[in-house]
Amino acid sequence: MENSFVMAGGGETAHKRDTICIFGTGDFGRSFGMRLLKSGYPVVFGSRDPKHSILLPSGAQVFSHADALKISKIIFLAVHRENYDFLPALSDLLDEKVLVDVSNNIRMNQYPESNAQYLAQLVPKANVVKGFNTVSAWALQSGSLDASSQVFVCGDDNKSKQLVMDVARSIGLTPLDQGSLLAAQELENYPLQLFPMWRLPFIITAGLTVFFFLYCTVIDVIYPYVKEKKDSSYRLAISVPNRIFPNVSLILLSLTYLPGAIAAFIQLYRGTKYKRFPDWLNRWMLCRKQLGLVALAYAFLHVLYTLIIPTRYPVRQRWMQNIIEASKKNETTELNKVKSWRGDVYFALGMLGFGLYVLLGITSLPSVSNAVNWREFRFVQSKLGHVTLLLCTAHAALFGWDRFLQSRRYKWGLPQAYMLGMVIPCIVLVLKLILITPCVDRMITRIRQGWESKSKYKAAPVCINNASLI
Amino acid sequence: MENSFVMAGGGETAHKRDTICIFGTGDFGRSFGMRLLKSGYPVVFGSRDPKHSILLPSGAQVFSHADALKISKIIFLAVHRENYDFLPALSDLLDEKVLVDVSNNIRMNQYPESNAQYLAQLVPKANVVKGFNTVSAWALQSGSLDASSQVFVCGDDNKSKQLVMDVARSIGLTPLDQGSLLAAQELENYPLQLFPMWRLPFIITAGLTVFFFLYCTVIDVIYPYVKEKKDSSYRLAISVPNRIFPNVSLILLSLTYLPGAIAAFIQLYRGTKYKRFPDWLNRWMLCRKQLGLVALAYAFLHVLYTLIIPTRYPVRQRWMQNIIEASKKNETTELNKVKSWRGDVYFALGMLGFGLYVLLGITSLPSVSNAVNWREFRFVQSKLGHVTLLLCTAHAALFGWDRFLQSRRYKWGLPQAYMLGMVIPCIVLVLKLILITPCVDRMITRIRQGWESKSKYKAAPVCINNASLI
Amino acid sequence: MENSFVMAGGGETAHKRDTICIFGTGDFGRSFGMRLLKSGYPVVFGSRDPKHSILLPSGAQVFSHADALKISKIIFLAVHRENYDFLPALSDLLDEKVLVDVSNNIRMNQYPESNAQYLAQLVPKANVVKGFNTVSAWALQSGSLDASSQVFVCGDDNKSKQLVMDVARSIGLTPLDQGSLLAAQELENYPLQLFPMWRLPFIITAGLTVFFFLYCTVIDVIYPYVKEKKDSSYRLAISVPNRIFPNVSLILLSLTYLPGAIAAFIQLYRGTKYKRFPDWLNRWMLCRKQLGLVALAYAFLHVLYTLIIPTRYPVRQRWMQNIIEASKKNETTELNKVKSWRGDVYFALGMLGFGLYVLLGITSLPSVSNAVNWREFRFVQSKLGHVTLLLCTAHAALFGWDRFLQSRRYKWGLPQAYMLGMVIPCIVLVLKLILITPCVDRMITRIRQGWESKSKYKAAPVCINNASLI
Repeated sequence: MENSFVMAGGGETAHKRDTICIFGTGDFGRSFGMRLLKSGYPVVFGSRDPKHSILLPSGAQVFSHADALKISKIIFLAVHRENYDFLPALSDLLDEKVLVDVSNNIRMNQYPESNAQYLAQLVPKANVVKGFNTVSAWALQSGSLDASSQVFVCGDDNKSKQLVMDVARSIGLTPLDQGSLLAAQELENYPLQLFPMWRLPFIITAGLTVFFFLYCTVIDVIYPYVKEKKDSSYRLAISVPNRIFPNVSLILLSLTYLPGAIAAFIQLYRGTKYKRFPDWLNRWMLCRKQLGLVALAYAFLHVLYTLIIPTRYPVRQRWMQNIIEASKKNETTELNKVKSWRGDVYFALGMLGFGLYVLLGITSLPSVSNAVNWREFRFVQSKLGHVTLLLCTAHAALFGWDRFLQSRRYKWGLPQAYMLGMVIPCIVLVLKLILITPCVDRMITRIRQGWESKSKYKAAPVCINNASLI
Repeated sequence: MENSFVMAGGGETAHKRDTICIFGTGDFGRSFGMRLLKSGYPVVFGSRDPKHSILLPSGAQVFSHADALKISKIIFLAVHRENYDFLPALSDLLDEKVLVDVSNNIRMNQYPESNAQYLAQLVPKANVVKGFNTVSAWALQSGSLDASSQVFVCGDDNKSKQLVMDVARSIGLTPLDQGSLLAAQELENYPLQLFPMWRLPFIITAGLTVFFFLYCTVIDVIYPYVKEKKDSSYRLAISVPNRIFPNVSLILLSLTYLPGAIAAFIQLYRGTKYKRFPDWLNRWMLCRKQLGLVALAYAFLHVLYTLIIPTRYPVRQRWMQNIIEASKKNETTELNKVKSWRGDVYFALGMLGFGLYVLLGITSLPSVSNAVNWREFRFVQSKLGHVTLLLCTAHAALFGWDRFLQSRRYKWGLPQAYMLGMVIPCIVLVLKLILITPCVDRMITRIRQGWESKSKYKAAPVCINNASLI
Repeated sequence: MENSFVMAGGGETAHKRDTICIFGTGDFGRSFGMRLLKSGYPVVFGSRDPKHSILLPSGAQVFSHADALKISKIIFLAVHRENYDFLPALSDLLDEKVLVDVSNNIRMNQYPESNAQYLAQLVPKANVVKGFNTVSAWALQSGSLDASSQVFVCGDDNKSKQLVMDVARSIGLTPLDQGSLLAAQELENYPLQLFPMWRLPFIITAGLTVFFFLYCTVIDVIYPYVKEKKDSSYRLAISVPNRIFPNVSLILLSLTYLPGAIAAFIQLYRGTKYKRFPDWLNRWMLCRKQLGLVALAYAFLHVLYTLIIPTRYPVRQRWMQNIIEASKKNETTELNKVKSWRGDVYFALGMLGFGLYVLLGITSLPSVSNAVNWREFRFVQSKLGHVTLLLCTAHAALFGWDRFLQSRRYKWGLPQAYMLGMVIPCIVLVLKLILITPCVDRMITRIRQGWESKSKYKAAPVCINNASLI
């Protein structure tokens, strides 16, 4: 759909816009030139060898670097940093021109200073602006909005920056001012990032997964083998994962709400909000969304792994044995009312909890969370989130039921997996319960409105404010 | 990801932008100042006690209110309405300045006039603009786009409003002009709203849920207890909800399409489109999306509650009894072809219907619906929507099959739940069927193109036009 | 939520904006006028019969066409092309005015030239801009953002275009410059499009679905009927579809990754990237996202159809027979370890594959893909995508297991359906395996960095660059 306009226009008639110059005829230079032409900008390419430049979009002109510079105010520099050396010679022609560095590196922090800062040193007369490096040539060419349409821009000269942002806007992109040229390093690192906010959640998840895998393998596979010489290794495929998923999911969900509770208790203890939280707590708070999404993914797998149970061959086989044995004994087993209640409530809580889980996930989609106001976002993510945690913890407790009393279930004296999984959720729920008791709640509210019990903490700036303590 | 730029920049070098003044050093004032500094704006804080102001972002200066006013054109007023009283004294300094009211209240419509209008009366010389009150301090600080990045702005002076919108744009937010200062009341109410569009759908859903809960409890739990002294109270956990969910979901889905059909018949009856629909119909039409989403949530739970059936203890127990009895009787039961067909088609229709349901839900995500044109949106939401309704109603009808003939199923003479659930869907389908017959369709199309059967209705303005009649 | 501001403002006080004139008092004209008034624009309507114009938004004035023209710079022409004939008479008044054509047609390419180009010929003195035709009157009126808030604009005069884009921006819409008036035809076709990018994926899916339906019907329904006179026609409802869905889904998923592999081999063979790919390959590449989404939909249905299995009557009946027979034989069947392993791994692979499938789908939502950088997008869509394909192909292989050895399963000598479904996925996996071997990978990387084995292909422009070869 988006690229239906790719072929349209040609800019032949719209010559009132400023001519834009592009140095560099690589993928980016060519695609960018094509897009500019389509939006009515005259485009010239600067080239070392203008007569042999090929593959350029029709409508664009090619000149030597110097000639191209003479007719345009804005120059996009689409060459690698290693090839900047031709620029100092053009220094006079670049005087007061807007020089846009669109380069990227291969590794993060590859050079001590950013390419744009290096460029600003090379041609001090030009107004260097960093930008467009996060936009892909493919996206420019196909008009596809799949890749980000945001253009981060930074630079020391505001007027030049404004000109570059206007170009971005008029070709259908959304420019975002990122401040002075100091930000160029960050802009150059951005396209090289690979989910930096997901690193901590990923490590936590991996650690918990490995731990529960080993733990459940010992209890469910090794123990029966050692004690009864029973080979139940096939349990590694579904039964063991289906213990890992719910427990890790529940722990991750509670870890999403734990930092908020800790922060509230820190504020209560300090009697002020005017003090920076410890760094680990800030880092933790910033990855809560990611923790929650991994928790949702695990909950999703838990649901699938549970629903497939009656279709599994080993399960059907066991049920069959049970029926045949019951049939032989010729006894009519009555429906156990307590067991029915417990089993059904156990499933109902799990499914309602999962429903809310999915709701939390949907609400964290950028386009959805953008459409709600802050009060609504907090209502869903905090209130409904804690209800979800409560439902899922109750689901786990009903799974356990009286198993914690049955000594035969403590293989080698080890507690059962579901018990380990419930520790942190229970702590979070107890902490939350304390925080919502009227007297504590009143104190917290007072502190967050600026009240202080003592004045000794006034010096340090606050970095996380109350809105984050959802 | 989004906050990777938070630390970048410092604005030290970008002194060409207008200095911006902030009155108020609370959470919002500080966070907003930090963000402005990052985007290259010089920032001064105005304070009663400039020497003792703490925690301000580095790079910002602090002056007395009067001194701060002297060096900046735009003043952001980040203090509570109760503390506006210091402003009239500064009236001369505020002459022709842009004074941005960012205040919020604690309750909706707390004061007879909006804070911004009150402010405009206090300092009539200043150009008061309302705005930024929907943006959270936390979002400004962390750079997180989770909360809305839209900035609603209103004011009587267009040039001032434009300046404020430029500030918003240059710090990466999306300003939206909301008209004159009369809109300030609405802007101040906005952050206090809690899903206002969901109220009506929520009430309808709650009403239907309670009704079906009581109805099914009477039929499934109380009746067997009274008649046969059979305790089937455990059915309250899963079986009864699994009657509520599908019926309420189906009714809600049909309620999504009923107003469009009613509107079409009203137009047909009146013979013109140039007449306002009754208010209740307009309100109903505006919450169709929400009704549909609740219907989807209930359908989702119905799917989960159905898929878990074979894993439930009471169900397995009953199947076991059946098998043992069949085994005793020693008779080979033939596979009933009709029952197989009916059962499989019943499930197939339900699953296909649910698939379309999910598709409708995905298409109503803001970012997806934004990427399709109006014709495509209508195709999915109207055409596929009616197909979904048809499939789900057929699913319900196959569930019923010949049960409506079996007198033993009418407990205490009450109709079965699924019958109640099918009334409105069937009405909607019949109405739609009438509307798509060629002759009626031709008439409707003619009316919507402006044709009128009589001229008597010409006076009243139309508020809902045809595009809404999906 | 979005329409909470609809009633606000009135523009009574904001008379500093340019007056905007609207010709045409239909749905669009009225709604657009209302929205402009709300944002503080004075609005005049031009009408043939100003005294009898009805239903206009309060605050707007109505004049004759000529009088309306005299007081405004920008004229929105909201009338059908057939009614343009009154304009040439106003030619002198339209001199240097901005005339915005918002008209749409009933069919694509209805006229040889676009309405806007026709208009530019009729009134050569006016600066014609095409735009706003993709915005619905309903969206303007209700303030709802459900329909697209993007406004495509094109025109030959840049300054006029800029004025129109400013109007769009100030009423909360997002203008997108589409170049010169040549693009008007595309803009007029856009609202008439019905998922043009989905046509090819739809045809492929429909073809594969019909083929597998017929194939499985022959094998599963007709064969048993012909050979054993067994009526298993009920299998058409669930069993046969549940063979179609997984196979077609797997084929579609592999078709998503096949063009990338083919393109890489073409580059390898040619020894250069500086050559245009064949057209069919370009078209194929552009609909990969759609192919993947259909594959996900089919996978979703496959999951539902599989999870419902144990609840189905014919299945329960068969299991019952099995149990009764086993019970009669009085033999204890041991749990088959290999069968347990195979069955559980088979399900586990399928569920993990589906989990990744869903992840791929979520990442392709516009708002999500907009929030990741290009490297992250490629990581998910390419790396995780190939892992998904691998898991799902392994899932299919485990379904098959040793069935390909059992001659009784080759009904009428035909290969089993799952075999047909695995052909293309296996080819894609083998191609990918070749491409990631170190030596081939090194060569591909070199080519994509611009290296060429020969210079003979230098002439033709490249249209798809490397970023697309995910």
